[in-house]
Amino acid sequence: MKGYAMLEINKAGWVEKPKPVAGPLDAIVRPVAVAVCTSDTHTLHGGAGDLKNRILGHEAVGIVDEVGSEVKRIKPGDLVVVNCVTPDWSALSVQEPNENCSHDHGPLASFKFLFQKDGVFAEYFHVNYADANLAILPEGVSVEDALMTTDMMSTAFHGVENAEIKYGDTVVVYGIGPVGLMAIAGAALAGAGRIIGIGTRENCAKLAREYGATDIISYKDGDIPTQIKELCGGLVDKVILAGGTCDCIDDSLKMVKPNGIISNIVFFDPSETVSFPATDWHLGMGNVTIKSGFCPGGARRIERLLELIKHGRVKPGKMLNYRFEGLESIPEAVKVMDEKPRDLIKPYVYIGDK
Amino acid sequence: MKGYAMLEINKAGWVEKPKPVAGPLDAIVRPVAVAVCTSDTHTLHGGAGDLKNRILGHEAVGIVDEVGSEVKRIKPGDLVVVNCVTPDWSALSVQEPNENCSHDHGPLASFKFLFQKDGVFAEYFHVNYADANLAILPEGVSVEDALMTTDMMSTAFHGVENAEIKYGDTVVVYGIGPVGLMAIAGAALAGAGRIIGIGTRENCAKLAREYGATDIISYKDGDIPTQIKELCGGLVDKVILAGGTCDCIDDSLKMVKPNGIISNIVFFDPSETVSFPATDWHLGMGNVTIKSGFCPGGARRIERLLELIKHGRVKPGKMLNYRFEGLESIPEAVKVMDEKPRDLIKPYVYIGDK
Amino acid sequence: MKGYAMLEINKAGWVEKPKPVAGPLDAIVRPVAVAVCTSDTHTLHGGAGDLKNRILGHEAVGIVDEVGSEVKRIKPGDLVVVNCVTPDWSALSVQEPNENCSHDHGPLASFKFLFQKDGVFAEYFHVNYADANLAILPEGVSVEDALMTTDMMSTAFHGVENAEIKYGDTVVVYGIGPVGLMAIAGAALAGAGRIIGIGTRENCAKLAREYGATDIISYKDGDIPTQIKELCGGLVDKVILAGGTCDCIDDSLKMVKPNGIISNIVFFDPSETVSFPATDWHLGMGNVTIKSGFCPGGARRIERLLELIKHGRVKPGKMLNYRFEGLESIPEAVKVMDEKPRDLIKPYVYIGDK
Amino acid sequence: MKGYAMLEINKAGWVEKPKPVAGPLDAIVRPVAVAVCTSDTHTLHGGAGDLKNRILGHEAVGIVDEVGSEVKRIKPGDLVVVNCVTPDWSALSVQEPNENCSHDHGPLASFKFLFQKDGVFAEYFHVNYADANLAILPEGVSVEDALMTTDMMSTAFHGVENAEIKYGDTVVVYGIGPVGLMAIAGAALAGAGRIIGIGTRENCAKLAREYGATDIISYKDGDIPTQIKELCGGLVDKVILAGGTCDCIDDSLKMVKPNGIISNIVFFDPSETVSFPATDWHLGMGNVTIKSGFCPGGARRIERLLELIKHGRVKPGKMLNYRFEGLESIPEAVKVMDEKPRDLIKPYVYIGDK
Repeated sequence: MKGYAMLEINKAGWVEKPKPVAGPLDAIVRPVAVAVCTSDTHTLHGGAGDLKNRILGHEAVGIVDEVGSEVKRIKPGDLVVVNCVTPDWSALSVQEPNENCSHDHGPLASFKFLFQKDGVFAEYFHVNYADANLAILPEGVSVEDALMTTDMMSTAFHGVENAEIKYGDTVVVYGIGPVGLMAIAGAALAGAGRIIGIGTRENCAKLAREYGATDIISYKDGDIPTQIKELCGGLVDKVILAGGTCDCIDDSLKMVKPNGIISNIVFFDPSETVSFPATDWHLGMGNVTIKSGFCPGGARRIERLLELIKHGRVKPGKMLNYRFEGLESIPEAVKVMDEKPRDLIKPYVYIGDK
Repeated sequence: MKGYAMLEINKAGWVEKPKPVAGPLDAIVRPVAVAVCTSDTHTLHGGAGDLKNRILGHEAVGIVDEVGSEVKRIKPGDLVVVNCVTPDWSALSVQEPNENCSHDHGPLASFKFLFQKDGVFAEYFHVNYADANLAILPEGVSVEDALMTTDMMSTAFHGVENAEIKYGDTVVVYGIGPVGLMAIAGAALAGAGRIIGIGTRENCAKLAREYGATDIISYKDGDIPTQIKELCGGLVDKVILAGGTCDCIDDSLKMVKPNGIISNIVFFDPSETVSFPATDWHLGMGNVTIKSGFCPGGARRIERLLELIKHGRVKPGKMLNYRFEGLESIPEAVKVMDEKPRDLIKPYVYIGDK
Repeated sequence: MKGYAMLEINKAGWVEKPKPVAGPLDAIVRPVAVAVCTSDTHTLHGGAGDLKNRILGHEAVGIVDEVGSEVKRIKPGDLVVVNCVTPDWSALSVQEPNENCSHDHGPLASFKFLFQKDGVFAEYFHVNYADANLAILPEGVSVEDALMTTDMMSTAFHGVENAEIKYGDTVVVYGIGPVGLMAIAGAALAGAGRIIGIGTRENCAKLAREYGATDIISYKDGDIPTQIKELCGGLVDKVILAGGTCDCIDDSLKMVKPNGIISNIVFFDPSETVSFPATDWHLGMGNVTIKSGFCPGGARRIERLLELIKHGRVKPGKMLNYRFEGLESIPEAVKVMDEKPRDLIKPYVYIGDK
Repeated sequence: MKGYAMLEINKAGWVEKPKPVAGPLDAIVRPVAVAVCTSDTHTLHGGAGDLKNRILGHEAVGIVDEVGSEVKRIKPGDLVVVNCVTPDWSALSVQEPNENCSHDHGPLASFKFLFQKDGVFAEYFHVNYADANLAILPEGVSVEDALMTTDMMSTAFHGVENAEIKYGDTVVVYGIGPVGLMAIAGAALAGAGRIIGIGTRENCAKLAREYGATDIISYKDGDIPTQIKELCGGLVDKVILAGGTCDCIDDSLKMVKPNGIISNIVFFDPSETVSFPATDWHLGMGNVTIKSGFCPGGARRIERLLELIKHGRVKPGKMLNYRFEGLESIPEAVKVMDEKPRDLIKPYVYIGDK
C-alpha cells in the first residue's frame, strides 16, 4: 500500500509499504477522511527527530477493513472515529485513580500514530486495542464534525476539564486556531461566563464569537495581562493556553486570581524553557495551579464528544475551511498546513467510503 | 503594653504600644505560648520590606481577654488556639467554590499578623472575626501540641491536601524541618505508602521516621532525582516542597510520573525565579500539575487538626525542642531561630496562663 | 411598615410591623421586585408549622435603605440581588472543606427568610451579613433575570453541580417547572449531551427545549424508566430531581448507570418516605450515588450566576410569565401561585425603584 | 482437576472438571493461599441463584501456571495477588472519567469469579486480562497480608474513599468483621480523627482498636444514633456501612451532619428494602450523600494496597485467625465461615507454592 511519509527531516513523499497486519486485539482501518495537524508538519521539520519513512497523520475517520481474533465489538465495515490517543489497555497506568486514560507506558506513550508507528495518511492504518479505541460514528453526525473530535476537540476540551470551570468563571484562552476555538466552545459548554480569546486572524475571531467568546484581544494592541486587567477590571479565574510559547505562562500568572488555574494544552518545542519570577506566583503561596494536559485516549472519550455534536451543542466541522479530495491530495493539504495562509483554520482531505 | 518588634530591617527590640482595641467582631487575646517561625526572622531581615516597629510573631495559643459586642461563641477566659491565617469572613473570595478559605481580599491578605498588623509577641494581640477564627483548646490536647497546629501543621497538611494523595502513593518531601516533618506526618495520615524525606539533620531525620518517613536521603549524597529514581526503581507519584529553593521544582519534574503532582508550600524569596526546560515537563503534555499552597484560615481548620491530636494520630509538639519561659525570653527564642543551631527543630516560649 | 404575612395556617393577609433594625453587620432593603415560590404557598398551608404573622417571600431584588456600622462594601442606594440563602458567616460550618456555603448552624439554618424571620413581601426587609450576602446588580442584567438567580437558578444549578456532569452525559430532569427549566439550562451549560425533561405543560415544554432539552416525555405516556430506556437504548448517566415525590428516587435508580448520580433538589413533604428495593440499587454495590442539595448561600454565588446572564449564556427571566405591579398586588401573585393555572410558569411583582 | 463447588443450593462438594484453558490475554493460576468470604457461603445458600457445580472462592494468591500468547508482563512462575474484581479492559465503561475501574459490562459484571465463572477453590483457576489483573507479590509482603488485599482491604478502602475523609473527620463504621476492621484501618490512614466502630465481638473490638478505632459501641447498649450523639456531643461527619442491613441507612441519616456522606459497602440481600422518612434526610435539602460501592478492579489497585503493607502502614493478615492447610481442607474452612464461631475473624487455607 502507499502512504505519505516523512522521508527525512524537512522532506515528505509517498512511500510503498506492506499493508499492516492485525494482531488478535487490533483492527486495520481504511481512512474516509483525514485532517492535517501542526503536529504533522512540526514532526516533518524534525520536532521528534529523524523518523525516516514514517507515515504521517493522526486524525482520521475510517472504515474497518479487518479485525483480530479477540475483537468483539468492532466489525469489518464499521464506520469508525479514531481517537488519536490509542492506549494499550493492559498497561497498568491507565488504571490509576487520578489517570485520564492517556498514559499507558509513560508520558505520551499512548500517542502512537506518528510518534511510535505509521500514521493515518495511507491506504490502510493499524489500530491497537480496536474494541477499546474505536468509536462507531453515530447517525446524525457528519464525517467532518466527527473528524474534529479525534484530536482538536478532545485536546481542547481536556484543557477545559483541567481548568475546572465553575459557573460564571472568567476564562482567557490563548490562541484562536482550531484548538483555541474548541477550548472556547468547551469553556462555554462548561459554564464559563466571560470568555476572552487572544488572537488576530479575522475569520478565526468571527468563529470564536460563534463558539462562545465574548471578547477577542490581540497582542498587537499591547501587553496581554494589562489589556486583560483593564477589560475585566481585575484578575481572571482561569487561563487556558491553546497557543503561544512558554512565556505565556508568566503572562498568565500576572492575570489569574489566587486559587486560579492555568491549563496548558500547547505542545511546547523541546528548545523552550518555562520561566517566571517567584513574585508572579505570589512567592509560591497563592494557590495558583499550573497544569499540563494530554487528552484522554479510548473510544468512550470520542463517544462523549460525538454526543455533544449529535445533540447540537457544538459544530466543530465548521473549522474545516480547506477541503481536499482523494488520498492523492494529502501532499497538498500538508503543504497548506505548512504554509498557513492567513485565512486557514483547518485543512482536511475527504477520501470517501468506497 | 510591650511587644517584641522589628524596629527596622535587621534590628529587633521591645516597643511600648497601647493595648489593642476590639471592634464589634474582634477579640483581644493574651498569649499563653508562642512559637517562632522562619517567617519571623525572614521578615526581620527585610523579607517584607521595612515594617518599622511591627510586633513579630504569628503562632500562638492564648487566653481571651475581651471580645466585641457581636462576638457570640468566644468568651473572655476561653483558652484558644489561633490560626495564623485569620480571614475577614465578609470578603467574597472566601465564598468561592474552589476556595480554601485562605484568601480574603487578595493573595496572602488573610495572613494579617506580622504582614498587616502587629503580631503575637506581645502582652496582648488583636484577632479579627473572633468567632470564626479562634478555636477552643479541647481537653486532652496540650498547649504545645495545639501551638503546632496554628501554622506548621496547617501549612504542611495543606501541602499534602494539594498533593491529592491516594492509597499507596510514593511521596517525596523536600525538607525535614518543622514543615517538612509535618508534611511527612500528613502524608502518612493521607494514605501514602513510601515516604522519602530529603534532609541532613540527624535529630530531624529520626523524628521524620517516627512521623512516617520510610527513607531519608541527603543532597550530600548526589543529585536528588538520580537518588530517588535508583531508590524507587522509577518515578514517584507526588512531590511536596517543604524546603529548598525554586530550583527544586525542576528537580521534582525529573522524578514525578505523568499525572503526578508537585505541591509547593515553601515561601519563596522575592529574588527567586522558577525555571525549567519544557522537556522536563514533557513538553507541556504529561499531565503533571504544579500547585502552590497557602493554608486555610479559620477556626474549623484548627479544630480538625486538634481532633487528630486528641485521638492520638500525631504528636506535633515533639518538634518543640527548644523551650523558653516567660514573655521576656522571646528575644532569646527569636535569636535561636535566627542562628539555627544544628540541633534546633522548633523553638517556643511558654508564657503561662496567669 | 406593612407586609404580607401568613396570619395562621391557610390564611394570609397584610400585617403592620415596625420597620426592621440593622445590627452592625446588617442591611435594611426595600424590594424592587419579588417573585413567589411554591415554598411560600407550601409554608402558608402549614408546611413549616403555624408561623403566625410571619411575612412571606424570599426571592427579591431591592434597594439598600440603610446599613450597619461594620458594613463596608454595600452602601445605601445600591441596587442589590438577594441570595435567598443568607448564612451567618461567623458560623464554623461554612468553613468546612466539603461545605457548599449553605449550612451555618445546621441543616437549612441559613434559609432565614420565611423560616426564621420575616421575608421579603414587605416595604422593607432585613438582611444579615450584608457585605457577604448582597450582590450588586451589574450593568446589562435586567431586574427580572436577576430576580431568577436568587432561588430558582441557584437551586437548580446546584442540582446540576451535584450531578457532576461530564461532557456528553445523558441527563434526565424530573419536572419542567421553573426549577426544572433552570436545571435543564444548567445541565446544557455544564456539558450534557442529551437532556430529557419530564413534564406535560406545553409552554414549559417549549421553554425547556429553548433552554437545552433534547426530548420531553410525559408520565401520561407510561412508566418513566421504561420510556427512558427505550428512548436512549439503555441507561442514563445522571438524574436530577426537580419535581415529583420521593417515589421518583426508585424510578431514577431503575434508569441510571453504575457510577451514576441521582441529584435531588426537591423540598420533600415531611409526610413522605424514601423507599426502594435493594435490587434497584444493585444490592448496594453499583456505585450509584444519591445526593440531596441545598443551594450555596452568599453574594459570590449570585455574582457568578449574574455573570452567566450578563454574557448571554442563559435568560432566566423568560420564565416570569405572570407579571403584577406594585406592592399591593402581592396577594394576587400569591393567589396565582397557589391556584397554578395551567399556563403559569413563574409569577412576580414589580414594585419599582422609587 | 478438582475444585470445591456449590453442587446445588445449600450443598457443596468436590467436582472434577477439565483444567481451564488460557485465551490469548489470559493466565491459568495455581492457588498458594485462599480465603473464604461470606459471599462464598451466601452464594452457597442461594444468594445468587442455583449455580450448579460452580466452583467457589474469589480471594487468592497464586503461582502462574501458563499465560496466553498476548500476555507480556506476567510470566509462568510469577507469584501473583489476584484482585477479586477482574475487568475486561476492552470494555468501554472502564474508560469513564468517573469510573472506579470496577464495572465493565454492567453492575458487578467484573466480579467474574463465583458469579460468572468458576472460582479459586480448585487446583487451577482462570484469570482474564492477566497483564492488567494480576499483581506481582513484592518482596517484604507475606502471602497472608497480600491475601487480604484481594477483597477485604480493597472493598473496605473503597468504602473509605467514597466517604471522602478530610483530616479530623469523625467517622462511624458499622460492623467490625474483616471488612469493618479494614474500613477502620483505611479511615485512620485517610486522616480521620475519632473513629467509632459498632460491634460486639471481643477479639474484633481489640483488633479494631489496634487498627485505629477510638471507641467501640454495641447495639446491645441501646439505639445507635442516640449512643453516637451522646458520645460525640453531636453529629458525625461520615458513616461507613461495613455490616448490618438496609435499616442502618436510616440510622446513619440520624447521626450524620449536613454535607455528610454515608458510604455503603455491604452486599445487601435481594429481599431487603432501603427505607427512610424524608425528615431524616432533611426533606432532601441537607446535602447528605448516600453512596454505594464496589471496589476497583485490576492489578494497580492491588499494587497500591501492597505498598501500604510493604511500608508498614497496615497489617491486614492479623485478621486471619483460622488457618487451615492443604487444598483438601477447603471444605473445613468453608464450614467454619458458615458456622461463624464467636471468635472467628477470617479463615484461610494455606496450600503452598510447590
